[in-house]
Amino acid sequence: MQYYLDGFTPGDPDVKPPASGLDRNTSKARGIPQEVDVLIAGCGPAGLCLAAQLAGFPQISTMIVDPKQGPMEKGQADGVNVRSMEMFQAFGFAEKVKREAYWVNQTAFWKPNPARPDHIQRVGIAQDVADDQSEMPHTILNQARVHQLFLDVMKNAPTRLEPHYGLRVQNVAIEPDNSDHPVTVTLDKVTEDGSAGKTVTVRANYVVGCDGARSTVRRAIGGKLHGDAAHQAWGVMDILANSDFPDLRRKCLIQSAKEGNLLIIPREGGFLFRMYVELDKLNPDERVSNRNIVAADIIAAANRIMSPYTIDVKEVVWWSVYEIGHRLTDKFDDVPADQIAHRTPRVFTAGDACHTHSPKAGQGMNVSMGDTFNLGWKLAHVLTGRSDPELLHSYSAERRLEAKRLIETDHKWARIMSAPPGQSELDGSEMPRFQKQFIENLEFTGGLAVRYEPSRIIAKAAQQPLATGQIVGKRFHSAPVLRLADAKPMQLGHAAEADGRWRIYAFAGQDDDGTAGGAIHRLCAYLDSDPASPVRRYTRADEDLDALIDLRAIFQQDFKALNFGDMPSLLRPAKGRYGLRDFEKIFCTDLKLGQDIYTMRGIDRRRGCMIVVRPDQYVAHILPLDGFAALSNFFDGVFKPQDEQ
Amino acid sequence: MQYYLDGFTPGDPDVKPPASGLDRNTSKARGIPQEVDVLIAGCGPAGLCLAAQLAGFPQISTMIVDPKQGPMEKGQADGVNVRSMEMFQAFGFAEKVKREAYWVNQTAFWKPNPARPDHIQRVGIAQDVADDQSEMPHTILNQARVHQLFLDVMKNAPTRLEPHYGLRVQNVAIEPDNSDHPVTVTLDKVTEDGSAGKTVTVRANYVVGCDGARSTVRRAIGGKLHGDAAHQAWGVMDILANSDFPDLRRKCLIQSAKEGNLLIIPREGGFLFRMYVELDKLNPDERVSNRNIVAADIIAAANRIMSPYTIDVKEVVWWSVYEIGHRLTDKFDDVPADQIAHRTPRVFTAGDACHTHSPKAGQGMNVSMGDTFNLGWKLAHVLTGRSDPELLHSYSAERRLEAKRLIETDHKWARIMSAPPGQSELDGSEMPRFQKQFIENLEFTGGLAVRYEPSRIIAKAAQQPLATGQIVGKRFHSAPVLRLADAKPMQLGHAAEADGRWRIYAFAGQDDDGTAGGAIHRLCAYLDSDPASPVRRYTRADEDLDALIDLRAIFQQDFKALNFGDMPSLLRPAKGRYGLRDFEKIFCTDLKLGQDIYTMRGIDRRRGCMIVVRPDQYVAHILPLDGFAALSNFFDGVFKPQDEQ
Repeated sequence: MQYYLDGFTPGDPDVKPPASGLDRNTSKARGIPQEVDVLIAGCGPAGLCLAAQLAGFPQISTMIVDPKQGPMEKGQADGVNVRSMEMFQAFGFAEKVKREAYWVNQTAFWKPNPARPDHIQRVGIAQDVADDQSEMPHTILNQARVHQLFLDVMKNAPTRLEPHYGLRVQNVAIEPDNSDHPVTVTLDKVTEDGSAGKTVTVRANYVVGCDGARSTVRRAIGGKLHGDAAHQAWGVMDILANSDFPDLRRKCLIQSAKEGNLLIIPREGGFLFRMYVELDKLNPDERVSNRNIVAADIIAAANRIMSPYTIDVKEVVWWSVYEIGHRLTDKFDDVPADQIAHRTPRVFTAGDACHTHSPKAGQGMNVSMGDTFNLGWKLAHVLTGRSDPELLHSYSAERRLEAKRLIETDHKWARIMSAPPGQSELDGSEMPRFQKQFIENLEFTGGLAVRYEPSRIIAKAAQQPLATGQIVGKRFHSAPVLRLADAKPMQLGHAAEADGRWRIYAFAGQDDDGTAGGAIHRLCAYLDSDPASPVRRYTRADEDLDALIDLRAIFQQDFKALNFGDMPSLLRPAKGRYGLRDFEKIFCTDLKLGQDIYTMRGIDRRRGCMIVVRPDQYVAHILPLDGFAALSNFFDGVFKPQDEQ
Repeated sequence: MQYYLDGFTPGDPDVKPPASGLDRNTSKARGIPQEVDVLIAGCGPAGLCLAAQLAGFPQISTMIVDPKQGPMEKGQADGVNVRSMEMFQAFGFAEKVKREAYWVNQTAFWKPNPARPDHIQRVGIAQDVADDQSEMPHTILNQARVHQLFLDVMKNAPTRLEPHYGLRVQNVAIEPDNSDHPVTVTLDKVTEDGSAGKTVTVRANYVVGCDGARSTVRRAIGGKLHGDAAHQAWGVMDILANSDFPDLRRKCLIQSAKEGNLLIIPREGGFLFRMYVELDKLNPDERVSNRNIVAADIIAAANRIMSPYTIDVKEVVWWSVYEIGHRLTDKFDDVPADQIAHRTPRVFTAGDACHTHSPKAGQGMNVSMGDTFNLGWKLAHVLTGRSDPELLHSYSAERRLEAKRLIETDHKWARIMSAPPGQSELDGSEMPRFQKQFIENLEFTGGLAVRYEPSRIIAKAAQQPLATGQIVGKRFHSAPVLRLADAKPMQLGHAAEADGRWRIYAFAGQDDDGTAGGAIHRLCAYLDSDPASPVRRYTRADEDLDALIDLRAIFQQDFKALNFGDMPSLLRPAKGRYGLRDFEKIFCTDLKLGQDIYTMRGIDRRRGCMIVVRPDQYVAHILPLDGFAALSNFFDGVFKPQDEQ
């Protein structure tokens, strides 16, 4: 991590120096503001991920509200897939999660024993994260801890952002012809006992509803959840328990012959685990609340499913019973499809507010955070005057398609989980269908199947052969490199922070050592001084050269064969108030463990290439190193000309 | 990390549940106590490392004082060698340091250019941490941050220990015939302006002087520093600066032809770096303070040495000029050599209070922490009634020898650094002497050459061939393994925490899969139920089975070939108030990256072995798996019989 650029400050470097004059700050101590740039409804994973991103921009005033009186302490989601871990890395707390969380390394599959169908037996085991699928593990950590890690990022950011607890969104009204804080949000002050108190209004430029499946924001913009009604009741329970079941510290999918299904999810700390227990099917007009299910019912069901094994519950930390719907809204913003050409969005929904699905694939928290990590940089681009507000249409376009894919996959998975085992599975002649499907789903459940369609921020993949392992529209796939200046072995992807900047990774072709005459040198010369260069066109005069577009170069040689002093100046830029040199832009291959990033990611060794990566870590474009005009054209589609900013 | 054993508690798991009734707590809010078990003088690395260790024991009351009014903000030591990083891992903050700190990967060597001796040129580069020397990097991080990380451990420990700032030790008096708090410490209250205020006294069972080279505690027990006087002045400076010197982000040793020597130590954050500049030799009766050296003198000297390169200093964060002495006290405690048989120590010194040396090898902070990591568990053993007080003699015996080795190595290194370059070095026909010596020193400077002599807590190395890569008396060398229950890839050494417990790593022989009849099973049966078993003899009735001796087993097979349910019960102990099973005792080889712990550490594959490791991570004994009597005998030398405890 880089710090002290503008001078030494004592203390924890994760606590950023505060922005000068925090007058636009909206933290609780300062009361309720009259106007904000962004009002976020809901302190769940979607809301906090967005707030954590926006907290890094002192120019943007952000307010996040929640009806609760303080942060969550336990319960609900717990799965953090590898893609979310990669995002956590950009927020700076992946290491913390790796240390605290349970790691899902292997998943075990249990089925009825054909010789004795009322007893289950292990029928298979599957590696959860494929080799080199991500540098991150798949982890399980309570949502409450994830919230706290985002809250820490917010509080330590230059804006020192903190939630306004005890405020519930009651209504959202948009004045479409007004361009100055056109959204009026009516908020109820919620008292300690949960009853509504005084009402206040806040005017916002943008409102994001991360307020769950019963979202007030969604209703205010006329959004409706479409999809199947829920007729399957599940019990979920976090427990401390003893058991003779040998796989208690592995994620397990258990199908019993007649008692239904059970998922075991080991949890952080080495003792706690979660059970998802399939309860009886509900009648079409029945609700879970009619059933009067209690914790003992869930425990009894689990014991029936796990027979001959038993669990002896010592402490129920949290439990709940719910029915699952697969539902989706038409749009994730307030602009109907037929008005896209005429209006830009002012109100958005994210997470459960616009899509609901089963928790069984462990996707909820991940997809919710994915929504707002997609939206955050776009809002920042627009609010800081970098991009026109039309950019905001891409949020609903990109994320709704992903939610739709999620619901389809989830549907299929639910069907397979519920189907009775076939003969070929029971006699062991074939891999069980649920194991087969589980393995097939892994890229999806890891969050790595997300692929955005071509648009103004995702180019057509015409040059895909230059980097066959970095797919245009998918997330940039990290790999090991060595940083030239200090020979530090690291992950290239960890150069990216959740700071709203674009990145260009320039992979040098063979024999290019960065000296004059080579393609990297020519690219740098273009970016540094050509009037058409996006670095020159869109970076403001008072900003560091890499404030908007952060160029990094990777070379094929060993670090000893390269000379830092010979590198183009754009790769060693002078930054900050002292004009200090940035030493962290240049990398080379790290061959020590036989891991060559060119081979691992299918980079064209002869020609090299440029990979343009969005602020949310998605590959936007792949270009040859001399694709100057195409590069400039692409960024012309992203940013407004500087004189309009 | 393991938590929630005794029930779920919300929040950060690094914040341990508070000890019940913190009445013996001595944190500042509670005023100055009249009596404590341990009084630590000085909040430097030695003092804080000891306090962090003792803070984990609610039975022990600890007080740590410092004349300053609050924690250090900058300056002084910054090198953290791999051994200290391994220790930080046991304290739980190695990952944090890895994230924040500069990593010393390669060190560059610069000499005069023979063709133009007033210009320096790079003559070599050396890998700083040899492959597989440690799983940790060598890092550089300001002492102030290291302090804070220890302070966090203390504050989050069950005792919620915090320093008493503004108290200076004025005198220490021992009543040798008293066994109840026999040490009376007189403390001056230091006011904000540094002047002494009111005096208070505290009675302690033990006092540890970590109060620096001018230690009051050392003087009170009649300790004198012996060694050579210092006639070499060095300037040290932390700066933000620009330079055309290409190796600014590598540790550099620079010898100029006529202007002296310079060390460059890049620092955390990517911009800051430290310079050690050799200034003129002092006359025998001259002190640095006579010279009136100012920051500009150091910068000018650095520029002369680095010619033709220059540095343009933008901010001087901290600087100092000092002279180096190599000095050592006769004993690190209050018991003269001729009285060891008759008295046990009550007062100790650690760190600079008992040994001083040059900062050039980056050892100061590391050796100081090493002192008190050695002392901490011994004090805990004695104060909790596990061991007799004679154990405390081993502190001075073990650490003084190490300090002596350090001073000898440092002497040799200083001579080589100061010697003018020879002809064979200048013409490049031979590796420069300082590079050769630097490489030779690496095991030492990494903190890995420490080897304690045989004693009651270090056995004779009769069975060394059973584990040729785990040397009796040296630190336990970690390697990758897979944890059986959850198939988590991890470092075996990271099973150890800084909690004062002993560990036995039992490596299974070929074909042993933990089932009945195998050597591991027999060992567990012995430890579990034999009257002579140290686990049975020394663990108290109200404690978990692993409270004192923590047994771990490692198998040669792949995790799929082993069955958790078949393992001996001692490897799956029921713990805590619920009797929950501990799943984290059993490991197997992790062959994915071709890293087999048996091969890497020279473990006898056929026979396997037991490796007994002390609470400070040093290998105390290596035994065959059936060496029951020898194992029991060894622990009989460490612990008191239970009826005497």
